[in-house]
Amino acid sequence: MFQDKVNQLLVNHQQLVSKQNQPDNGTEGYVQRYQNEVFTPAHFPPQWIYDLNESSNPHLAKRLGINAVFNPGAIFFEGKFYLMMRVEGYDRKSFFVLASSQTGVDQFEVEGLPIAIPQLEDRDVNVYDMRLTQHQDGYIYGTFCVERKDPDAKAGDESSAVAACGIIRSKDLKSWERLPDLITYSGQQRNVVLHPEFVDGKYALYTRPQDGFIDTGKGGGIGFGLTENMENAEVKEEIILDPKKYHTIKEVKNGQGPAPIKTDKGWLHLAHGVRNTAAGLRYVLYMFMTDLEDLTKVIARPGGYFMAPEGGERVGDVGNVLFVNGWIEQEGKIFIYYASSDTRIHVATSSVDQLVDYCLNTPEDPYFSSDSVAQRIALIQQNETVLV
Amino acid sequence: MFQDKVNQLLVNHQQLVSKQNQPDNGTEGYVQRYQNEVFTPAHFPPQWIYDLNESSNPHLAKRLGINAVFNPGAIFFEGKFYLMMRVEGYDRKSFFVLASSQTGVDQFEVEGLPIAIPQLEDRDVNVYDMRLTQHQDGYIYGTFCVERKDPDAKAGDESSAVAACGIIRSKDLKSWERLPDLITYSGQQRNVVLHPEFVDGKYALYTRPQDGFIDTGKGGGIGFGLTENMENAEVKEEIILDPKKYHTIKEVKNGQGPAPIKTDKGWLHLAHGVRNTAAGLRYVLYMFMTDLEDLTKVIARPGGYFMAPEGGERVGDVGNVLFVNGWIEQEGKIFIYYASSDTRIHVATSSVDQLVDYCLNTPEDPYFSSDSVAQRIALIQQNETVLV
Repeated sequence: MFQDKVNQLLVNHQQLVSKQNQPDNGTEGYVQRYQNEVFTPAHFPPQWIYDLNESSNPHLAKRLGINAVFNPGAIFFEGKFYLMMRVEGYDRKSFFVLASSQTGVDQFEVEGLPIAIPQLEDRDVNVYDMRLTQHQDGYIYGTFCVERKDPDAKAGDESSAVAACGIIRSKDLKSWERLPDLITYSGQQRNVVLHPEFVDGKYALYTRPQDGFIDTGKGGGIGFGLTENMENAEVKEEIILDPKKYHTIKEVKNGQGPAPIKTDKGWLHLAHGVRNTAAGLRYVLYMFMTDLEDLTKVIARPGGYFMAPEGGERVGDVGNVLFVNGWIEQEGKIFIYYASSDTRIHVATSSVDQLVDYCLNTPEDPYFSSDSVAQRIALIQQNETVLV
Repeated sequence: MFQDKVNQLLVNHQQLVSKQNQPDNGTEGYVQRYQNEVFTPAHFPPQWIYDLNESSNPHLAKRLGINAVFNPGAIFFEGKFYLMMRVEGYDRKSFFVLASSQTGVDQFEVEGLPIAIPQLEDRDVNVYDMRLTQHQDGYIYGTFCVERKDPDAKAGDESSAVAACGIIRSKDLKSWERLPDLITYSGQQRNVVLHPEFVDGKYALYTRPQDGFIDTGKGGGIGFGLTENMENAEVKEEIILDPKKYHTIKEVKNGQGPAPIKTDKGWLHLAHGVRNTAAGLRYVLYMFMTDLEDLTKVIARPGGYFMAPEGGERVGDVGNVLFVNGWIEQEGKIFIYYASSDTRIHVATSSVDQLVDYCLNTPEDPYFSSDSVAQRIALIQQNETVLV
């Protein structure tokens, strides 16, 4: 009876991770969603959650539940698609788990054990949202958010944290070296991403300077800075290349997603933008492009969002959220690993051609309603000649 | 035609309240959800909502709609399962209604009329979340939250309220005696629960000292205090037995659920914990156990949540909320009456054996991500020997 229940758990899990995935019937034209999520809490093997020994767990109860899996970094390595997933236990602590797939759109399975990140003197209370960058220097870097309790929190405040950028690196995705946290002088850091190439012999980082814990406060915007090395990474000066902006999808805050993808027209950037609503913050994805020579020069700003929560994506632990920190370019095709509502991971596909076209030919946000009307009337009238 | 419509309402209602309920396909191993809710606004008889007289209501319009039914106290009494439900009309006022069932999992029907709580000199503006306790003294006590407008609210502030603990008692669940509100010296009170046994000849109360209205402010945590009597209940000193805690499921606030259940290993406690998110507060349920001799000594703290919102439970008037203030132990089986998103009532079942096992064998929250990783790696490796 106990063994039957265990077998059923194992069979159900195997069926789920073997399932194939198909594009859905979306009509965006620049990005293609898929019918199934690529990773959910049910995708973890039962042995990660249950004690499978009847004598110590006669009720076959979950001992270490998994609440959510989201916000993965992503990399193509030795012929496989890898996700560095943010996994959250029932205890709210996040940690990282690698999953791999041959196809990039389905049959992802965990790879090895949960990643034991080496600890610094000041231990990480929580870690999340790792960006993976295959750098010119030969290392794969992971930059992630580290949270520790705010030492200045008032008595009775058990919520406030301070966020910094943690850094690890590896050459095989198996053994990871921990480097000191990034030093910046602009307050807390989340959403720090390493650029894949050297810039004037230095390492380049996308940053997000911030004074508060959940709000970005006075600062904000996607920043850019250089560090001499990664062993003691220090960015002395940050230039804001993509500021938050009144009455846009990024009016409250924004942050770089994964490392940008190089094309012959410029660097493709995927990011998240946040606005406030009566029901809390709303997170959407947007894109922009930067110049091949001057990384701080934005050369295309398609208006509005690239992807926003749809259908079941709207609902989860933190509703109304799409977030992305991982994508993979492979032979011109692009795999976007986005998470919905801090709960599960999806894939969407596109191509370099489609995303460059999207960035260069989507009208910019004109910042005024009447100008948006003019844009739309122009589109409708131009189409009249086609529709005759 | 009018009569046909009335008959249809009556038939639909009768079908709904006659429906049987079955366990769902959950695999927690320590708690079992059910397929159907046990009480929703549709479970109220049409005569509670409509004027059924054609001459005065030719359109068969709702005259007093019911918006939500949630957060019930619960008790087993004279062979039946009773819920003391919080019912909210379209006017946002909450009040209490008893419902009863023979099975505990289905076919709950309202019992009698909405309860007319006797009023004190300072009238209740709103009342909600009653805990029922069958006390050693022979009375069934109901402790509930009473809200009145904050007399110190600034001009133009029509939201601020002060919360206190109201108390009623009965011997038959029909006639209720109102006692003066609980007096404490730690600010406002919500989530006050009467312990079922005398402690050194006194009445023992679980409290939740609080300075603010929706936030718990500087205070917080589940408190414990004694009162000489219930006729003029006064707790002079509160000991915090389960504080809120940084980066846990209860970092913003927490509160005792129903009265604890006595087992030979200790008292089983069910509670709610709250954290903040970009989309508002998230309420989950958690458990702990206290010592049989020393009620302020916590002897088991299973890490993380016991139950969190799932599927349709995530959505409602106040989304992302599970709350519980009623459970029943009957012949070793436990019936948990939880509400989702301040909207409807569900049942989940377990047993004393399962919950004691859950409390004693679920690892504690280790408070650091890397320690949660170590816990999980230990579980996975231990299971490797079983899976060969």
